[in-house]
Amino acid sequence: MPLLVIGSIAVDSVETPWGRHDNLLGGSASHFSLAARFFTPVKLVSVVGGDWPQEYTEFLRGRGIDVSGIQVVPTGKSFRWSGRYEPNMNDRETLAVELDVFGNFEPVLSPDHRRAKYVFLGNAAPSTQLKALEQVPGCRLAVADTMDLWIKTCHDDLMKLLTRIDGLVLNDSEAKLLADTENLVLAGHRVRELGPKFIVIKKGEHGAMFFSEHETYVLPAFPMENVVDPTGAGDSFAGGMMGYLAEQDNFDPETLKTAMAYGILVASFNVEDFGLHHMQSITRDHIESRMAEYRKMLSF
Amino acid sequence: MPLLVIGSIAVDSVETPWGRHDNLLGGSASHFSLAARFFTPVKLVSVVGGDWPQEYTEFLRGRGIDVSGIQVVPTGKSFRWSGRYEPNMNDRETLAVELDVFGNFEPVLSPDHRRAKYVFLGNAAPSTQLKALEQVPGCRLAVADTMDLWIKTCHDDLMKLLTRIDGLVLNDSEAKLLADTENLVLAGHRVRELGPKFIVIKKGEHGAMFFSEHETYVLPAFPMENVVDPTGAGDSFAGGMMGYLAEQDNFDPETLKTAMAYGILVASFNVEDFGLHHMQSITRDHIESRMAEYRKMLSF
Repeated sequence: MPLLVIGSIAVDSVETPWGRHDNLLGGSASHFSLAARFFTPVKLVSVVGGDWPQEYTEFLRGRGIDVSGIQVVPTGKSFRWSGRYEPNMNDRETLAVELDVFGNFEPVLSPDHRRAKYVFLGNAAPSTQLKALEQVPGCRLAVADTMDLWIKTCHDDLMKLLTRIDGLVLNDSEAKLLADTENLVLAGHRVRELGPKFIVIKKGEHGAMFFSEHETYVLPAFPMENVVDPTGAGDSFAGGMMGYLAEQDNFDPETLKTAMAYGILVASFNVEDFGLHHMQSITRDHIESRMAEYRKMLSF
Repeated sequence: MPLLVIGSIAVDSVETPWGRHDNLLGGSASHFSLAARFFTPVKLVSVVGGDWPQEYTEFLRGRGIDVSGIQVVPTGKSFRWSGRYEPNMNDRETLAVELDVFGNFEPVLSPDHRRAKYVFLGNAAPSTQLKALEQVPGCRLAVADTMDLWIKTCHDDLMKLLTRIDGLVLNDSEAKLLADTENLVLAGHRVRELGPKFIVIKKGEHGAMFFSEHETYVLPAFPMENVVDPTGAGDSFAGGMMGYLAEQDNFDPETLKTAMAYGILVASFNVEDFGLHHMQSITRDHIESRMAEYRKMLSF
């Protein structure tokens, strides 16, 4: 099944203990798409300005991604982000965020995109995510990401969104903030009670947790000695997870758990180099090979 | 196989968001012994002062633990510790540490204890751990714990200890400190190169990692909604792990991984109430039942 993602594509500058790279192709939908394409056809909806490097669009198209949904606002400027990671690779300082055209993003889906059955709403204002979601009334599975900014500043819109989506993906600090508790298990269940059928809490180097009415579990991250750039790891995780669900055209509990594992593994490739450098060179075989190691690691 | 543990037994005062409890039976060897006894006979070697509550010794004896190795220094005072946990249950403030007799502990093992094949050296000065280890020259498996204090102040003794033991158990921040890196995978391998055949890094609510020459893996913690008191969780983990190894009288890679899982599960019971309250009431059946859930959680 094709998978529709609505989210940002951006120009990133990243500094980690391994070096500094400017003008990288970034944004949640870029990382998501590069991860999901291993499993299923991906259709990307986003917005850029007149300054957008056309080669980035061609790069995405070259990886088989449907880029017809990338709107260009010739008079606007593209989303730019720059950040610096601490040596622990978990804490990062955002040096600059220029949302520009993405800040006023009003997604308008094509007739083809409106027929999507699997939809991922990348991190954006909940009102933008709602506007996108309303255009795919027949979708079978809608999953959204969010962030601390929206939890703090757009609480009502976010609450409305949570009653309309099937799943929510968010990181550990965001879950604690939204649920007002330091215990992640409690946080997962509290957020689930706000509407979604399932919640996934991303814990970075510590893996990810899953919560539904009848299931609570955690899967560890794949142990990585060389973490070069964590940017987009969470989006790659979501891409791997959603990509597998769309490929299987199924989201029963067993498939969801396997999808979580694929998300974790695809994210482990994402962090091995800056931007999308490593993600562009791997194949499904690399993922399956790591999956075999991962299954062995978790069996005893 | 019987299991020998040399370490502290103490009087603890603990404050967490769930309340405050004074005069709890604590210390690394207490938590270790209560966890290991589910699997194998435990022999405890420690030291207390004239103020030691005799009912604590009787409590341990009542759980089947050989307490003949508890030395009493009538003129001395017992080890006392008090601490307060932050709401996140990971950060804690040590309010008072009075080592007293444990600070001058010179373990002298009985002829029976000297024949031990499985030995755990609970957290103590590396010189004390070495003195204990020298008295069990025929042991098959010697594993030690350590802490940041000894890494900082007794580096040479610790380096000597690392060349004499089979395994080292330490927590994540201690591993980073000892290996001088923020990456836990790198830290695990670097510490292993200092001598031990295997290293276990405890990550609290995120589980534990294992490192040997040919294996690197991580197992997640059991998801817990009610973490009441984390004190002694690491010692319970070590007790469950070593107890299972001694029970199996085997420490091949497969047995070590299963032992790690038992350690994780026993620790999950330890944190469900203050001190040893919950650990005293559970049975092996409770552990096996949680193990079945844990295996199911990790299979997909």
